Amino acid sequence: MTNELPTLEPEVFRRQAHQLVDWMADYLRRVGTLPVQPSAPPGAVRSQLPAEAPDRPEGFERIIRDFEAIIMPGMTHWGHPRFFAYFPANSSPPSILAEMLTATLGAQCMSWNTSPAATELEQVTMDWLRKLVGLPDAFTGVIQDTASTATLVALITARDEALRRHDAKAPGADPRRHGEPPVSIDRLTVYASEEAHSSVAKGARMAGFGPDRVRAIPADDRFAMRETLLATAIEADRKAGLIPACVVATVGTTSTTGIDPVPAIAAMCRRESIWLHIDAAWGGSAAILPEMRWIFEGADQADSLVFNPHKWMLVNFDCTAYFVRDRDALRRSFATSPAFLKAEHDDRVVNYRDWGIQLGRRFRSLKLWFVIRTFGVDGIRAMIREHIRLGRLLAEWVEQDGRFELMAPAPLALVVFRYLGEDAGKGGDPGGEREIDMLNERLLQRLHAGGRIMLTQTRAKGKYAIRLALGHLTTREEDVRSAWETIRSAAAELEDTGGAGSGNQGRGE
Amino acid sequence: MTNELPTLEPEVFRRQAHQLVDWMADYLRRVGTLPVQPSAPPGAVRSQLPAEAPDRPEGFERIIRDFEAIIMPGMTHWGHPRFFAYFPANSSPPSILAEMLTATLGAQCMSWNTSPAATELEQVTMDWLRKLVGLPDAFTGVIQDTASTATLVALITARDEALRRHDAKAPGADPRRHGEPPVSIDRLTVYASEEAHSSVAKGARMAGFGPDRVRAIPADDRFAMRETLLATAIEADRKAGLIPACVVATVGTTSTTGIDPVPAIAAMCRRESIWLHIDAAWGGSAAILPEMRWIFEGADQADSLVFNPHKWMLVNFDCTAYFVRDRDALRRSFATSPAFLKAEHDDRVVNYRDWGIQLGRRFRSLKLWFVIRTFGVDGIRAMIREHIRLGRLLAEWVEQDGRFELMAPAPLALVVFRYLGEDAGKGGDPGGEREIDMLNERLLQRLHAGGRIMLTQTRAKGKYAIRLALGHLTTREEDVRSAWETIRSAAAELEDTGGAGSGNQGRGE
Repeated sequence: MTNELPTLEPEVFRRQAHQLVDWMADYLRRVGTLPVQPSAPPGAVRSQLPAEAPDRPEGFERIIRDFEAIIMPGMTHWGHPRFFAYFPANSSPPSILAEMLTATLGAQCMSWNTSPAATELEQVTMDWLRKLVGLPDAFTGVIQDTASTATLVALITARDEALRRHDAKAPGADPRRHGEPPVSIDRLTVYASEEAHSSVAKGARMAGFGPDRVRAIPADDRFAMRETLLATAIEADRKAGLIPACVVATVGTTSTTGIDPVPAIAAMCRRESIWLHIDAAWGGSAAILPEMRWIFEGADQADSLVFNPHKWMLVNFDCTAYFVRDRDALRRSFATSPAFLKAEHDDRVVNYRDWGIQLGRRFRSLKLWFVIRTFGVDGIRAMIREHIRLGRLLAEWVEQDGRFELMAPAPLALVVFRYLGEDAGKGGDPGGEREIDMLNERLLQRLHAGGRIMLTQTRAKGKYAIRLALGHLTTREEDVRSAWETIRSAAAELEDTGGAGSGNQGRGE
Repeated sequence: MTNELPTLEPEVFRRQAHQLVDWMADYLRRVGTLPVQPSAPPGAVRSQLPAEAPDRPEGFERIIRDFEAIIMPGMTHWGHPRFFAYFPANSSPPSILAEMLTATLGAQCMSWNTSPAATELEQVTMDWLRKLVGLPDAFTGVIQDTASTATLVALITARDEALRRHDAKAPGADPRRHGEPPVSIDRLTVYASEEAHSSVAKGARMAGFGPDRVRAIPADDRFAMRETLLATAIEADRKAGLIPACVVATVGTTSTTGIDPVPAIAAMCRRESIWLHIDAAWGGSAAILPEMRWIFEGADQADSLVFNPHKWMLVNFDCTAYFVRDRDALRRSFATSPAFLKAEHDDRVVNYRDWGIQLGRRFRSLKLWFVIRTFGVDGIRAMIREHIRLGRLLAEWVEQDGRFELMAPAPLALVVFRYLGEDAGKGGDPGGEREIDMLNERLLQRLHAGGRIMLTQTRAKGKYAIRLALGHLTTREEDVRSAWETIRSAAAELEDTGGAGSGNQGRGE
């Protein structure tokens, strides 16, 4: 045992950080040459690491050696130009630079007082974003960590507003006076499309809505919520004595880019006094293009909206933009003011700790500021525009190939398709749905075994479908062309090795 | 407008990142020479920034110039050796280095599949931490972003378990069968000390517990929960037909380092089948010292526990360690498995997305790994031990000075005191409580005006008190000695300028 105090030696840090910067620049240069994802089985990394923390200090060189030898081979490369899985988690050089500064400053941005510049830069950059996507100035923005969190924040606020409004209506009701509050959470209901992201149902569960109080409204052929069925569901719940509290509309669903009819839904929510939250986690960034602004039609009538600059605006994860119309409602749900947090200007400043779940907050606006200034809005628009062009191009290629089926419209930069088999291309019978599902599982498995490309799967109207999402700074037409060639070749090889075969566990399962 | 696509040029990044590294190393060297916090009024930063995002790209040099000229003067320096406010948000060179890599890799660590090495490194490092603080292997760890989030996770799990257990007892009950679930959230209750952190009451509110269902149990003279009053409250609630769902015990309260009697509380919770969550957000790190292990006595009987390596273990914010006994209960509350997230090894791996609120997760275990290896457990212990020694030293100085009063025991490294006035030092009447409160407000205001030191205030048994929290890598005895001299001088000057005076708004308000 030692009693030697650890020290901060800036010159040691300087030397090590310079060494890492070279590694980082090299990594950005070579990431496209690596396998997109590792092939080692579960436990391969863990088995190489000691079960006990080291008592004695270890040298930087040794740690970096282990990082390269043990950690790196086990990483999935999210910045790879042929990473087409999930949605992208964006990154870009200016964002990495800003993260370096954020880590160095180590500022805690919970209150204005704890880092005034961080709070004010967040106000400014969020207002930039608000204008860029065309939201009116009735909305105010705050950075959250993830869209899951932002949606939970919306659901909690909606819940509290519904309870509060109902209490106010009950003549002379005082929730503190009786053993039970006059209105129970159990009576509140939530609505979202059956195509909505899993974070909506999870968020409702976390916020305490009853397990049978979340309505999955059927979607139409374009994966958009059917507003008439929403109206029916709301009416039925009202008749049953329930209280509709929140509708979550999606602009660009995760599975298939479904875009809910926001104008009609918003009108309904206004009429019915229901909180409308718009989940545009991925798709929202596209609204900074004038020609794509239509995706936010009706959004100005919503109560809250979320989109992720960390998905499609070149800002490192995590950076979620949450906009809310009624700041007072938000603060009613989330404000705290214990004695140990009070500070001089509390009555004149924004304390973002009162705008969400966490008390502690990183200095996230810095990377937003670096990214927007470095690329300019024009640059970011050009990139998103190009991704949309590439998505449509790929969708065309899929449609032109009779052996493949485009499973959903591709208005943004997500292409969802499936392989029907060689016979289908020749006008033959593509086989039963279950066989096609298995064929596509095997196709994805084969694609991943190659390590050249990473995709993910989903279910589209019950059918197994492959998703290809675009959104990286470095992805170019040649990458999409190469991906499509890889997919076609793998499909052809699949036929050579024996048709649908047994549905063994593929990575895409 | 341009259609020029933004590109990633690794050599440009390399040059800029090297330039920033020098800035970063210089900052670490000079931070102690800066004013701890800015003095500019609200709006000073914002007014220097444009209201619209720039359309055209701006150069790196210009952005850095603005960063230095506009942002830096508005920052509170959390890494300053004389930052004694709140609790520290730790940082250290190896942690900053790891954050640089994390930002560069940009990996999304929601599932094993999305970055196998990140998941496995998290398993390994969290198991290191578990052993270091002496928790039995019945506990499993997961990294959360903040203690607020971890406590919310605990409250949600406790809530769901209470409902589930109750449902199971109701013979033949099926919550789906009837319009209402058999047990309402409205009947559930939560207990914490009146000294507990604001995140407990806020967490309960967010999780949907009724506004009048959180019991603030009175604390004793040492700011520890009075277990007999906890027992009384639980019994009264049971008699009223309510269902006690969760007790949150604190090990090291934010205001005054209160340490709740965990062994007695744990026995009670076991007997009563109530979820016991331990909030050791700040204090928990001290349990890695063998001689301080006593603070976790009884914690092995808890259901969950949280502490923050980002507070007192040199790991950059955010990095919260959450330990849970019943992983299945946790997953029952938080697991999701939509088609678009399924992956090959789901049945054999840990998918941390199922262990908390957010879907997206940063690669946080990397910095934990870098920090523990770089300093070694011995090094981290030596630092915490030194902070505790310095805390006790300062507490002694306070006690030896008749003009000051130590307001709470200082078993860790938080010293809470107040100034009683020059007369008190001479055996005279320190004046009324309200005058003393105002005197201390003015003292804190004067201290902050000097810019040499940052502290915060709290209320201890209703009295205004000043908190001095230690925990930085760079804080040495000379800093504490200098802080104490600064405090004494400011107090003396206060007398010179005219006693208690009018209670105008100080920064410490």
